[in-house]
Amino acid sequence: MFIHEHQKRIRYGETDQMGYLYYGNYALLFEIGRVEAIRAMGTTYKYMEEEMGVMMPVIAMECRYLAPAKYDELITIRTILKELPTKIIEFHHEILSDAGKVIHKGVVKLFFIDMKTNKRVSTPKFLTDKIKHLF
Amino acid sequence: MFIHEHQKRIRYGETDQMGYLYYGNYALLFEIGRVEAIRAMGTTYKYMEEEMGVMMPVIAMECRYLAPAKYDELITIRTILKELPTKIIEFHHEILSDAGKVIHKGVVKLFFIDMKTNKRVSTPKFLTDKIKHLF
Amino acid sequence: MFIHEHQKRIRYGETDQMGYLYYGNYALLFEIGRVEAIRAMGTTYKYMEEEMGVMMPVIAMECRYLAPAKYDELITIRTILKELPTKIIEFHHEILSDAGKVIHKGVVKLFFIDMKTNKRVSTPKFLTDKIKHLF
Amino acid sequence: MFIHEHQKRIRYGETDQMGYLYYGNYALLFEIGRVEAIRAMGTTYKYMEEEMGVMMPVIAMECRYLAPAKYDELITIRTILKELPTKIIEFHHEILSDAGKVIHKGVVKLFFIDMKTNKRVSTPKFLTDKIKHLF
Repeated sequence: MFIHEHQKRIRYGETDQMGYLYYGNYALLFEIGRVEAIRAMGTTYKYMEEEMGVMMPVIAMECRYLAPAKYDELITIRTILKELPTKIIEFHHEILSDAGKVIHKGVVKLFFIDMKTNKRVSTPKFLTDKIKHLF
Repeated sequence: MFIHEHQKRIRYGETDQMGYLYYGNYALLFEIGRVEAIRAMGTTYKYMEEEMGVMMPVIAMECRYLAPAKYDELITIRTILKELPTKIIEFHHEILSDAGKVIHKGVVKLFFIDMKTNKRVSTPKFLTDKIKHLF
Repeated sequence: MFIHEHQKRIRYGETDQMGYLYYGNYALLFEIGRVEAIRAMGTTYKYMEEEMGVMMPVIAMECRYLAPAKYDELITIRTILKELPTKIIEFHHEILSDAGKVIHKGVVKLFFIDMKTNKRVSTPKFLTDKIKHLF
Repeated sequence: MFIHEHQKRIRYGETDQMGYLYYGNYALLFEIGRVEAIRAMGTTYKYMEEEMGVMMPVIAMECRYLAPAKYDELITIRTILKELPTKIIEFHHEILSDAGKVIHKGVVKLFFIDMKTNKRVSTPKFLTDKIKHLF
């Protein structure tokens, strides 16, 4: 299992007139979570795209809104890999309020595309090599 | 059953460097779909909040990304109510490409809050009265 | 002179907790205005990028916020070309409330890049040919 | 004079298909800059709104795009107050690339509204007291 945490402050432009983080903005939190998780593994998504020619489109997302996130709150994005990825990589996310309560749960599934052939491929070896000892 | 369709053009600011609609921007398409569906029922979400004191927070969302939406594409947001809402209202969405192909499926579940008491309530009668003949 | 008008409804996700359109979202209104203005001229920005290999980066923007735009308001984006573009194209924008009052003024200046050479070029002839009779 | 710097990473969802930070997303960088500058002064914008009943709507913004910001780049938002604010507060911003080059300049002017009376007021004394020794 791989767990990573990253903090982010909620901005005015990310709230809506209900006074909370807009329900559509959690996807950006998940993006931040998985990109920083990949950086913590010892590589970057930017490197994957630019140097390895592999991109990761999203295939599915699920969100459960338990409690709202508020303006200026310093939330924690917890990102969890429960299994070593194969054809699909599945990120589990928990958003924690500044008081440490889980206020949102999400799952994002992505696959891998070889940008030269535009064909689907398995998880690149350079990525699994960095994390396989954790599973 | 209630089905409503609304067209929207994909803007540059809504794409990302993959050249497609960013995966986090489908939530806004769903918002447009359900708000325009409510308008087609003969009322508005703005009226519900401002005049009836009822707001509709999102409790869950599911997205399945079948094919990308492209810059300047005139997509169709299809919004479907399969059941008369009770404590929860469940909108099913299909996003259609300009060629008429379903490229995305989503489900958004919302509940109702009385803004004075901040308590959860059932679907307001003025809303069910407008649509119950359809089910 | 070239004047074009396009209507857009303000969405929940575009408001902030002040209850108004977020000050950073006017740039998207200007994008919509200029893209629809170019479509009204008889071509598209998408065609310019994909077929003619010319893109238009923004070089400067000015915004004056006169009154707020509200949730669900059907605003009008007025786009004005005062002069035939040469090395720079300058779009003047006025945002009108649903009551027809000017609530925002903006100016966006863009230039032209040949995407093959990555060099700056003058306004493409196929574009000026479509609008020169108006000036 | 008051100068403050804050770092932010550019996210995928903030880029567009040109491969750069979307031109409309600089306003959010300015918001982050001024909110973190106010925090560095020893108060918060959230406190101003919630406890002091004062909000700060934007009256004008100017942007000069010198060079693009790229995906995953760790940019610096430099925020400068050149004068002690009176009826208007004027934030000057410079965005620096990860190589330390100024790639964008912006100015945002805001005023102060007493949220109870909805009337315009001068800069609150509790704010000027915190910064007047700097000018």
